[in-house]
Amino acid sequence: MSAHPVLIDGQWTASRGDKTFQAANPATRELLPDEFPVSPWEEIETALQAAAAASKEMRGWPGARFAAFLESYADQIEARADELATTANLETALPKDGRLAGVELPRTTNQLRQAAAAAREGSWALPTIDTATNIRAMYGPIGPVCVFGPNNFPFAFNGVSGGDFAAAVAAGNPVIAKGHSAHPNTTRIFAEAALEAIQATDMPPALVQLIYRCDHADGAKLVSHPLLGATGYTGARAAGLFLKEAADKAGNPIYLELSSINPIFVLPGALEERAEALAEEFAGSCLLGTGQFCTNPGVVVIPGGEAGEEFIGLVSRAFESAPVGTLLSEGVERSMAAGLDALRSAGAELLVGGGPGGGNGFSHQNTLLKVDGAKFLQNPEGLQTEAFGNCSLLVVAEHIDQMVQIADALEGNLTGSIYSDTGGSDDDSYHQLAPAVRVHVGRLLNDKMPTGVAVSSAMNHGGPFPATGHPAFTAVGIPASIHRFAMLQCYDNIRPHRLPPALQDQNPGGGLWRSIDGAWTQADVS
Amino acid sequence: MSAHPVLIDGQWTASRGDKTFQAANPATRELLPDEFPVSPWEEIETALQAAAAASKEMRGWPGARFAAFLESYADQIEARADELATTANLETALPKDGRLAGVELPRTTNQLRQAAAAAREGSWALPTIDTATNIRAMYGPIGPVCVFGPNNFPFAFNGVSGGDFAAAVAAGNPVIAKGHSAHPNTTRIFAEAALEAIQATDMPPALVQLIYRCDHADGAKLVSHPLLGATGYTGARAAGLFLKEAADKAGNPIYLELSSINPIFVLPGALEERAEALAEEFAGSCLLGTGQFCTNPGVVVIPGGEAGEEFIGLVSRAFESAPVGTLLSEGVERSMAAGLDALRSAGAELLVGGGPGGGNGFSHQNTLLKVDGAKFLQNPEGLQTEAFGNCSLLVVAEHIDQMVQIADALEGNLTGSIYSDTGGSDDDSYHQLAPAVRVHVGRLLNDKMPTGVAVSSAMNHGGPFPATGHPAFTAVGIPASIHRFAMLQCYDNIRPHRLPPALQDQNPGGGLWRSIDGAWTQADVS
Repeated sequence: MSAHPVLIDGQWTASRGDKTFQAANPATRELLPDEFPVSPWEEIETALQAAAAASKEMRGWPGARFAAFLESYADQIEARADELATTANLETALPKDGRLAGVELPRTTNQLRQAAAAAREGSWALPTIDTATNIRAMYGPIGPVCVFGPNNFPFAFNGVSGGDFAAAVAAGNPVIAKGHSAHPNTTRIFAEAALEAIQATDMPPALVQLIYRCDHADGAKLVSHPLLGATGYTGARAAGLFLKEAADKAGNPIYLELSSINPIFVLPGALEERAEALAEEFAGSCLLGTGQFCTNPGVVVIPGGEAGEEFIGLVSRAFESAPVGTLLSEGVERSMAAGLDALRSAGAELLVGGGPGGGNGFSHQNTLLKVDGAKFLQNPEGLQTEAFGNCSLLVVAEHIDQMVQIADALEGNLTGSIYSDTGGSDDDSYHQLAPAVRVHVGRLLNDKMPTGVAVSSAMNHGGPFPATGHPAFTAVGIPASIHRFAMLQCYDNIRPHRLPPALQDQNPGGGLWRSIDGAWTQADVS
Repeated sequence: MSAHPVLIDGQWTASRGDKTFQAANPATRELLPDEFPVSPWEEIETALQAAAAASKEMRGWPGARFAAFLESYADQIEARADELATTANLETALPKDGRLAGVELPRTTNQLRQAAAAAREGSWALPTIDTATNIRAMYGPIGPVCVFGPNNFPFAFNGVSGGDFAAAVAAGNPVIAKGHSAHPNTTRIFAEAALEAIQATDMPPALVQLIYRCDHADGAKLVSHPLLGATGYTGARAAGLFLKEAADKAGNPIYLELSSINPIFVLPGALEERAEALAEEFAGSCLLGTGQFCTNPGVVVIPGGEAGEEFIGLVSRAFESAPVGTLLSEGVERSMAAGLDALRSAGAELLVGGGPGGGNGFSHQNTLLKVDGAKFLQNPEGLQTEAFGNCSLLVVAEHIDQMVQIADALEGNLTGSIYSDTGGSDDDSYHQLAPAVRVHVGRLLNDKMPTGVAVSSAMNHGGPFPATGHPAFTAVGIPASIHRFAMLQCYDNIRPHRLPPALQDQNPGGGLWRSIDGAWTQADVS
C-alpha cells in the first residue's frame, strides 16, 4: 500500500519523502495498515509559501468570510461524524459513543462555531479609538500559523480541527497542521472535510494544509521560519521546549501547552465532612479517560491523621477496583512507567498498582503513590514529575503551614483546586492557602475537580511555565484564545475611508464592542 | 570619592562589588566625577528575594494602593523637576528646557498618573464573567519585574520612572530597575523620589529597587531567575537578544524594544503636491533630538524622476544647513559610524555628511545616504541596518510595484508612514502599498512623521520582530501596556465571598468595565 498523500495548497499530493509510518491500534498493540508519509523539508517549505500567499491574499478580509468557512467546516464534520468516531476509536481506543461521538465531537464543532461567531462579530479584536489623538488600534492576523496537535484529544485539540486551529482561523490566518502520529487517519478525514469547506466557501486553497509528520530538525525549521506568523503546540514537554528554543531565537511567537500535575488541596474540614464523596470524585476524575487529560489531578495534598488515613484507604480501594483503561500509545505506556519510576526514586511510596499491563493493549495498572509533606519539600522538583496516565500522588501534610509551603514550591500548572468544608471551618486555612496556589496556576477551582475544561469566555486553559510558555494566554476560551494568533495594529492619523471598518466612526453593523476614549460601547464615534 | 550606594529593599546600601563606572558629559566628552557601582550577583539576588517577598505581601492588594504610590511618586518627581532636568542635561546633553523639563518630564508624570488612574479603576484587567458556567477571569500581577531602561529617554523610559515601570507597578508588581549607564545620577534622583513615595504611601520597601549596572552574565541570570515574573527591556538589539535567549530558555516572559528604521513611503502625488513641505517635515523629524528616537525615520522610499531628484536636493540642503547635535554617548557615536559603514558597504551612496564630529562633544555629521530600489531589493537586510542617530537613507523606487516589493522586504518595525496627495490621485497606489506596510509595522501613519509617540489608549509602540520580541504588545499606551506584566487568572466555581472584588456579582464602585456573558458593561451581574 502506498502512503497517503499530504494536503498542500488545496491538493492531495503524493509526498516527496520516502519515509513512512503507521499508527497502532492501542487496544491490540498492532500496527494499523495505513501508511503515512514523513514530509521532507521541501514539502514543508512549499506549504509555507502557499500559506504565506494565502495570508497575503486574505489581508483585510472581513471576519464574516472566516466565519462562513468555520461554520461550513463544522457542518462537514457533523456529516462525517460516524466515520470520524469509528476511525478515532480505532486509533486511540477512546470510547466511540461515550467520548468521541457523544462528547468530543460536539465540543469540537461547538468550538468552531463559537470561533465563527467571534470572527463575524469582531469584538475579539478589541477595537480601541482615542478621539483626542485620532489614534485607533485593533488586533489583526499574525500570519500563517502552524498547529501541532496532541495525542489525547483527537478531535477537540487536533491540529486541523481543534481550539488552536479555530482560534488561528478566526483571527484571519491560514493554518499548517502537523497531525499527531498516533491518529493520522482521523486527521486525514478532518482535512478532507476542511478542504470541502474551503471549496464551498470560496476560500484560498492553502487556508488549511496538512502534513502528518516531520523530523525534529524540520519542525524547528518550520516554527522559526520567517514566513511563519506563530505556532500553537500541545504535547510533551521535551519536544515542545525543543520547538520553543528554535521559535524564540527567530522571534516567532510560540504558544505551548506542555505539562501539568494539577494539584488538589483538601482542607481538614472538607475531609471531616465528606471523605467518601471526595475519594469517589477524585478517583473518578483521575481515572477518567485513563488519566490522559491535560488537567488530570496528579497530586493531592491532604491532611494527615485519622481522616487522612481513611481517605487514603478509600482512594486505594477505588483505584484497585476500577477497571484498567487502555492508554493512547506505547509511548504513553512507556512514559507513564518512567514517570512513576522517577516519583518513586524521588521518595514516593507505592500504595496501589505500579506495574505495566492490566488492561487491553497499551495499559498500566491504576497506580497510587504517597509521600509525606516534609519529604515532598525536600525534593519538590522530583516529586512534581508528570506521570501522564491513570496514576496520582498523595501528599500528606502535617498542618496548614506545610500545605502552604507545598503550594509555594509548586511549578506552574494549568489548574489548582481547593476543597473546603461547607460550614466555613476551613475559611482561615483557605485564606492562607489560596494566594499561594493562585500564582502557580492558570485556573483556581473550589470544590471541583479540574478535568472538565468548559469552552467559556472566561476559561483559562493556560498557566505559568512550565505548564505553558506564557502565563497570559489561554488555549481554550473565546475570545481570549484568539489573541495568541494576532498582532496589534495601530492606525495613526489614517484617512477615514482607509481605516478598517471596525475602526471607522460608524460602528459596522451596530453590534461591535469598541473602547472609545476608555469606555466600552456599541455606539458610533460621536 | 566612594561609589554611590544601590537601593535594595528600601535601604541605600553600599554595593558589595568593587567595580565602578562613571558616566560622561556628552557635550564635553569628559567623565563626570560621580562613581557608580557594578553590582555583583549576590547583590542582585538580594534584590530579587526582597522583590519576591514584596510581591507576595502585595497579593490581592487593591489597585488603589498602587495608584496612591504612583501619584505620590509623580508629585515627588515634580518637586525635584529642576534637579532632574539639570542632572539629565549634564548626562545626556538633551536640552534642559525645550526637551527635558518642558516635554519629557511632564510626559513622565502624565504616564505615571495615567497608570495610577488605570490601577485604581481596574478595567485594564479585563474582568470577564461567564454566568452560565460560573467561570470568571481577569488579569493579575505576574511577579517581580526587572526593567532595563534605554539611553535616549532618561525620564520617560527610565527603568525607575518610565512606561515599563509605570505599567509593571500598575499591574501590582515590584520593580527592580537596571539604570542605564549613561545617566546614573538622573536615575538615582528618581529612585530617591520613589523611595519617598513608598514611605509616604506605606508600600513595601522593595516595591522599587535600583542597581546601576551588572555584567552581561548576571543580567542573563537575573532575567531567567525563577523568582522573576517578567522583564521589560529597551535598548540595543544585541544586548536585548542576549537577555531574550536567557529569559526564553527559563520560560520567563521578556518584552523587548530593540530597533526600528521606521520607513516612510512618499507617493508620487504627494511629492508633486508638496515636496518642500515634506522635505522640511522629514528633515525636522529625522534630526530631532539628534535622530535619537526609537521612531526616527531611517528610510524614506520616494519615487524617482524629476520630483524625486528635487526632493533629494531639498533634503540634502536641509541636512547640510541644520546644526549638528550632540549624541548621547561615545557608544552612540561609534555605532552610528558603524551603521553608516554597513549601509555604504551594502551599496548606499553618500549624499551629505558621512564623518564623525561636527558638533559639540560626541557628534557625527548629519548624514544622508541614497540607494536605488533595485539595489535595495538585492540586499534588503544589509540596507536595513539601523544607524541610530542623525542620518537617513533615501531609497529611490522606479514605480509603485517596486515600492510594494520594498515594503514586502521590510523587517519588523515600530512604525511605517505613507504620504499621499490630498486630492486622491495616490489612492490606487495607497491601496496597493498599505497592506504590505501594515503587516511589518506596529503603527501605520498617514501624512505624518512617526517621531511623536502619544500616550494614548490606542497607541502601539511595538511591532513585529526584530523591532520587538512579540507583535501583540505595546510599550506605550494604557491600558494595553499593562498586560505585559500580568498573568491570566481564572476562577472556576469559587465561592462568591472568595472572589476578588472585580469578579464578584456586584460591580465594585460601579465604574468598572467588565465583560459579562460577552457584553461589556458597568452593571452588576443580574
